[in-house]
Amino acid sequence: MKKHNLCYAQSGGVTAVINTSAAAVIAAAKTTPAVHRVYAAQNGILGVLNEELIETWHESGKSLRQLEQTPGGAFGSCRVKLPDPNDDLVPYARLMDVFAAHDIRYFLYNGGNDSADTAMKLSAAARTLNYPLVVVGVPKTIDNDLAATDTCPGFPSAAKYVAVSIAETMLDVASMSATSTKVFVLEVMGRHAGWLAAAAGMAVPVGGGALMILPPEVPWRRAHFVATLHRRVKKYGYAAVVVSEGLCDSKGNFLSADGTDQFAHHQLGGVAPIIADVAKHAGYKCHWGVADYMQRAARHIASAVDAKQAVAVGEVAVQLAVQGKNAYTPVIRRLSDSPYRWRVEATSLKKVANRERRNSLALANVVLICS
Amino acid sequence: MKKHNLCYAQSGGVTAVINTSAAAVIAAAKTTPAVHRVYAAQNGILGVLNEELIETWHESGKSLRQLEQTPGGAFGSCRVKLPDPNDDLVPYARLMDVFAAHDIRYFLYNGGNDSADTAMKLSAAARTLNYPLVVVGVPKTIDNDLAATDTCPGFPSAAKYVAVSIAETMLDVASMSATSTKVFVLEVMGRHAGWLAAAAGMAVPVGGGALMILPPEVPWRRAHFVATLHRRVKKYGYAAVVVSEGLCDSKGNFLSADGTDQFAHHQLGGVAPIIADVAKHAGYKCHWGVADYMQRAARHIASAVDAKQAVAVGEVAVQLAVQGKNAYTPVIRRLSDSPYRWRVEATSLKKVANRERRNSLALANVVLICS
Repeated sequence: MKKHNLCYAQSGGVTAVINTSAAAVIAAAKTTPAVHRVYAAQNGILGVLNEELIETWHESGKSLRQLEQTPGGAFGSCRVKLPDPNDDLVPYARLMDVFAAHDIRYFLYNGGNDSADTAMKLSAAARTLNYPLVVVGVPKTIDNDLAATDTCPGFPSAAKYVAVSIAETMLDVASMSATSTKVFVLEVMGRHAGWLAAAAGMAVPVGGGALMILPPEVPWRRAHFVATLHRRVKKYGYAAVVVSEGLCDSKGNFLSADGTDQFAHHQLGGVAPIIADVAKHAGYKCHWGVADYMQRAARHIASAVDAKQAVAVGEVAVQLAVQGKNAYTPVIRRLSDSPYRWRVEATSLKKVANRERRNSLALANVVLICS
Repeated sequence: MKKHNLCYAQSGGVTAVINTSAAAVIAAAKTTPAVHRVYAAQNGILGVLNEELIETWHESGKSLRQLEQTPGGAFGSCRVKLPDPNDDLVPYARLMDVFAAHDIRYFLYNGGNDSADTAMKLSAAARTLNYPLVVVGVPKTIDNDLAATDTCPGFPSAAKYVAVSIAETMLDVASMSATSTKVFVLEVMGRHAGWLAAAAGMAVPVGGGALMILPPEVPWRRAHFVATLHRRVKKYGYAAVVVSEGLCDSKGNFLSADGTDQFAHHQLGGVAPIIADVAKHAGYKCHWGVADYMQRAARHIASAVDAKQAVAVGEVAVQLAVQGKNAYTPVIRRLSDSPYRWRVEATSLKKVANRERRNSLALANVVLICS
């Protein structure tokens, strides 16, 4: 069997377990007969364009185990949008040149839905340019908004962070509420999908019904919010509010947004102080926190299931690559709820690219909590 | 020996280990011959005024072990300022009546410097009113600004939270900085003392020199900050900024403050977005987080030393009470740096009340990091 090289790259926002997938890809590729050497591109697809390829085959088992437990993206990630290959093949020609120069026939792109789009463009361009490249996705996003997968590596750990943080802070606020703070607002990530905000619902057995969840799927109406807040404080002595950064008003405008990125996404953040101001005007002493990068970097409280799934998708991605499953990605399929059982399957990147899975399942609970 | 009852109460901002002290007080008092029953006042001193006393002697060993590991203040805390007993003895007469009605001769107040002030007033009033009360403090504050103690229960856990959070987020930002976020700002608590901000320095072995610390002791000058930020980003590709909520400008005004509490303290919070705006104007994509109550409620990442010290001060406080050490408090005395060795000693509450220990020791390091 003729061996070829594999290149792995990280893309988009990093997670607590993206390096866990990286370590699994490198370890699996090392023992895969069809793979000769494993490169990691520095800063995602940019590393290929700039021919900055890290030689990972020198890494020991010990250093891979350390990598597995390190937050952030060890090889550097990026937010870069490639042109449509039908309009502009120039960067793709450069990419294929670099792949050819290093005998790279397998490219694994570890990212979310924007990255799946990049992977598909790359796959199409390789076909046009007649370069024998197999492109495989490795799913990752804390937002859990990836279509076609039950859950997505990165999300369970961030969800655990949110649930533990709000449970702990609810105990804190509950103890102070007689004479001091009565409302605590925690802002979590989630542009359009409220999975992370909904994860706060796991704190209900600790904090009880004092919790309110404001996901981006439910338009925020001030009067309704204030009325609900008053009911919560009256009943429990305090209230805790978990709000998605992407909370919108009834016209669909973000409550907080400044600037846009390359993908024409608004940069969000800062909705917690807005909600806190409303609570203050309603007469309550209020504190607020913003979990921002802490929620996606919190490897110290990573979910064990998440780490296992991150390993599994990495291993299966290597298998798919050497099987020639071009433009495919591993996904998680749920087999049962209780106990939670799952397996990894393969699906086309088309089913993932540029789609956002909204929070329909969780919304049933969220609406209960909001009302 | 005539036995009397003991009352324990929690006061001021709670910590990850204040319940650890509570459990230790209850367990120690149970086995102290001079103590008959242990009450916990509901919501601090208010619980005595309102005669809301929780009977803790029904609690099992298992429930005390659970209490030990629960964040927040299980019996409720409060922020209440009692009048000067020289001006107004009325509330004190009520307190002594309640103590007398329940044969409470020992009162343990678990709090910071404001609470030490309350405890001293209580002790003075008891003398004036001729009620045989022994008042003992149990130290607690995440700010570490308590005079006369090496460190203060609550601080080591919050410090660990801050150090771990900034280390994790620095790894996150470092991996994104080539094409996305270049500056991350984390706001931590600390009104006048920058111990918590300085604790971020523990992340330097992970994040390296990209860290900047802005403690309240060092007046913030915009031009100097921006120049330092540019140097950091140029050298490391990114920068992380840990800022105390109490950061002041060169005139001594808080950068962010709205409203004041009963102790005439400003309610702070919201300096991170101000610093982030400055970083954005300096040309960098910037993210910011606010740790707020998360940092003091994070029992999931509590420091083992902190938990041990919280137990030790609780146990010693019970001993001091039955020894009649009125208006005393246990403090931590450092015996050696490496390995860190300590013991609990007793000191007068006078040395603690209404004083703030500034961050002089840590400042040497902080200045290094800021410059």
